[in-house]
Amino acid sequence: MTQAKDTARANDGADPVRISAYLAEFLAAARWEDIPSEVRHEAKRSLMNYFATGLGGCSDAAVATASAVLARFAGSATATVVGRRERGDMLSAAFLNAMSANVFDFDDTHARTIIHPTAPVAPALFALAETSRMTGQQLLLAFVLGVEAECRIGNAISPGHYQRGWHITSTCGVFGAAVAIGRILGLDAERMKWALGNASAQASGLVETLGSMSKSISVGNAARNGLVSALLAEQNFFGPDRPLEGARGFLRVTGENPDFSCITQGLGEQWELLSNAYKPYPCGVVLNPVIEACLELSKKPELSIAAIERIEITGYPLLRERTDRAHVVTGREAQVSAQHAVAVVLTRGRAGLAEFSDACVAEPALRALGGKVAFVDDANYAVESARVTIRMGPARPPLSCLIEQARGSTARPLSDADLEQKLKDLALYGKSGCDPQPLIAAIWALDGAADAGALMPLAAGRK
Amino acid sequence: MTQAKDTARANDGADPVRISAYLAEFLAAARWEDIPSEVRHEAKRSLMNYFATGLGGCSDAAVATASAVLARFAGSATATVVGRRERGDMLSAAFLNAMSANVFDFDDTHARTIIHPTAPVAPALFALAETSRMTGQQLLLAFVLGVEAECRIGNAISPGHYQRGWHITSTCGVFGAAVAIGRILGLDAERMKWALGNASAQASGLVETLGSMSKSISVGNAARNGLVSALLAEQNFFGPDRPLEGARGFLRVTGENPDFSCITQGLGEQWELLSNAYKPYPCGVVLNPVIEACLELSKKPELSIAAIERIEITGYPLLRERTDRAHVVTGREAQVSAQHAVAVVLTRGRAGLAEFSDACVAEPALRALGGKVAFVDDANYAVESARVTIRMGPARPPLSCLIEQARGSTARPLSDADLEQKLKDLALYGKSGCDPQPLIAAIWALDGAADAGALMPLAAGRK
Repeated sequence: MTQAKDTARANDGADPVRISAYLAEFLAAARWEDIPSEVRHEAKRSLMNYFATGLGGCSDAAVATASAVLARFAGSATATVVGRRERGDMLSAAFLNAMSANVFDFDDTHARTIIHPTAPVAPALFALAETSRMTGQQLLLAFVLGVEAECRIGNAISPGHYQRGWHITSTCGVFGAAVAIGRILGLDAERMKWALGNASAQASGLVETLGSMSKSISVGNAARNGLVSALLAEQNFFGPDRPLEGARGFLRVTGENPDFSCITQGLGEQWELLSNAYKPYPCGVVLNPVIEACLELSKKPELSIAAIERIEITGYPLLRERTDRAHVVTGREAQVSAQHAVAVVLTRGRAGLAEFSDACVAEPALRALGGKVAFVDDANYAVESARVTIRMGPARPPLSCLIEQARGSTARPLSDADLEQKLKDLALYGKSGCDPQPLIAAIWALDGAADAGALMPLAAGRK
Repeated sequence: MTQAKDTARANDGADPVRISAYLAEFLAAARWEDIPSEVRHEAKRSLMNYFATGLGGCSDAAVATASAVLARFAGSATATVVGRRERGDMLSAAFLNAMSANVFDFDDTHARTIIHPTAPVAPALFALAETSRMTGQQLLLAFVLGVEAECRIGNAISPGHYQRGWHITSTCGVFGAAVAIGRILGLDAERMKWALGNASAQASGLVETLGSMSKSISVGNAARNGLVSALLAEQNFFGPDRPLEGARGFLRVTGENPDFSCITQGLGEQWELLSNAYKPYPCGVVLNPVIEACLELSKKPELSIAAIERIEITGYPLLRERTDRAHVVTGREAQVSAQHAVAVVLTRGRAGLAEFSDACVAEPALRALGGKVAFVDDANYAVESARVTIRMGPARPPLSCLIEQARGSTARPLSDADLEQKLKDLALYGKSGCDPQPLIAAIWALDGAADAGALMPLAAGRK
């Protein structure tokens, strides 16, 4: 059997001994003093983006439905549900807040793995913070370590894991949440390893579910079940010795020829959080330069939408392969449709969630304009670049805009002010009534906060 | 990449269109009248064995710890926790009852997949039955259909799925629970497909966790999360169109060259529950003939434990490969150790849970006797057979016993009376104080019960 051979090969590879134990020892011992200042700041930026997308997603039907179903079994309502008026028990709140943060795929992206790192980790931490007192520094340290474990585990099995069909944010996120909570609970290295083991038993999530509500279940579970994993480990609920590297452990079972060194190499010196990026638009990242070009073009006084005869998109072939989708019918599909993106951004001069809603997609004028899009493949373009050229007939000169490096990559990241604006925009979109300003201030001040949990009521819904 | 080729090959195989929809349509439409009487009776036998192993496992540390941790977040205590005094909310009870039923791996076994079919399905149903009134027939029908879906999904990916390292009871069990609950909720075919989709997002569990408490989490989750999957689907929480057969769906992602026909062929005509078997001993099934031979030999007046010089076990090589484990230190390891099994069964004339406990394994006399075991490979033996020969020196004739077909297989199943006795024995072992007789009577009478949930208080702990 082919698979047996694969596994055998993995066994012959990097020394598999004590990967889980080695990682657990590092996670249990790392100190706030060891975290470089730029990593600490990136943690706060990730949380800014987390609350932004959570406030944007909080009124989505998936979140509302799950909240109503879980309310039937909810225990003591100790935890804030982001952007909503109801509160939940700790586990339900972690579940729901991970869902809302990720429901539009507008959350952060770890470049190498395409993990959305924050959605599974932050909700577990903040849910615990509302009943177990922790400082902002403690929470931020636990968050950094959770993301570190999550992304390094992802590195070890990328790109084969996602390519096979694993929703890597969910499958690796449960480890991140377990580690973050384990750290807050003060687990020793042995128990931290058990938390990883308890998480390994719960790693799930399929790419097939993308575009359906089911996707949000696995993201919610990553947060909830990571929390459970660590709470159990604290009570001596023990796991296997080698949950990651074992012959039937997570890395070998869900990865193809996993690279164990990704977990151990440079641990404590290189920080995965520095590879985290934040989306400026709620779309597939390859569309970023196209959207940015259209935003620029939309400002030109010479542009006449009515006169447009043809819109050429020139870019690396991957751009066409991923986004050539005419005639989409849902907002979710529109997020990966160049035709819709070009039409709506040129027309409205905006590229927010409202521009990628079901209602917006249905507008006949946008569909007609999208029909004028033509792709021009050019392998000389970088993936981060694109040119949009608008032709309006012989009487008008063509308009053209080249974007060499779109915003939202780690090379050209959103600024702190951009992230604040994203939170304000999404708070408005989500209609929670949450006042963004005090929340923004509390996030930037988190490293000085005596009580991290005090931030959460600022993110609650007011309507 | 080898894996990419595998998936491509699967794509070229059986027609993958509408497997999930086809299955969902059958599950939504099947009627009690369609279920043959022997299948109906097997369902009750499976439930007898389920309550037996649950009452045996209810006081295990894994169950007690999980119950205490979840109690911190528990909602309305509507549901009985088998063998325990505390009650739980519906989801927690489903989780804990699946754990206790499977914690010793003493529960039922579906021959072709080695799925333990009942542990994920029955707890979800009975937890719901305590708040949502259903008849015994409705529960039994839902149970039969849940097991059918669970085992057929398992058939489609066996044996590669387990061999790769997936704990198949957990990964396939979540579908079984979702289907069973979906059936009770009266989901139409579309929503039943969504329940399968919501389950697909939650399928998890690794073989690496066997022998640790972590294993019980994935089994508990199978019941709990299957229940959640169906409750969400009922509220229009929609899943993907092809959760099983899709390019990144459950079967292709977790299986090697899945055989889709296993799901559709003979559906409604051949019933997987008829391949369900019940263990007479709490050990790996390959040890069954060895234990049975030792039970026979232990009754012989000629046997002198003190005089034993050598014990030969003759069987198919698989027997040695799976069970040649001297010097085990835990009860869990002892369950797959021929050395311990032979020593304890010859000495005590019993083969219950007490004989495979940590304390029992530590007895020096048993360790010494186990050291006298020698394996003799003989490929002419069937897997279900074994011979045990005891040599006690030149003064005494050797004793030998051949078991051609051990009890506990589908060919030589436990009788109804055996299953009742198993429940009585395990109720005593688990020390719950539960009176087995009324429970046994209620299980046999379930198909005539107006209120299936009324059975559960009979399984509660009294101490």
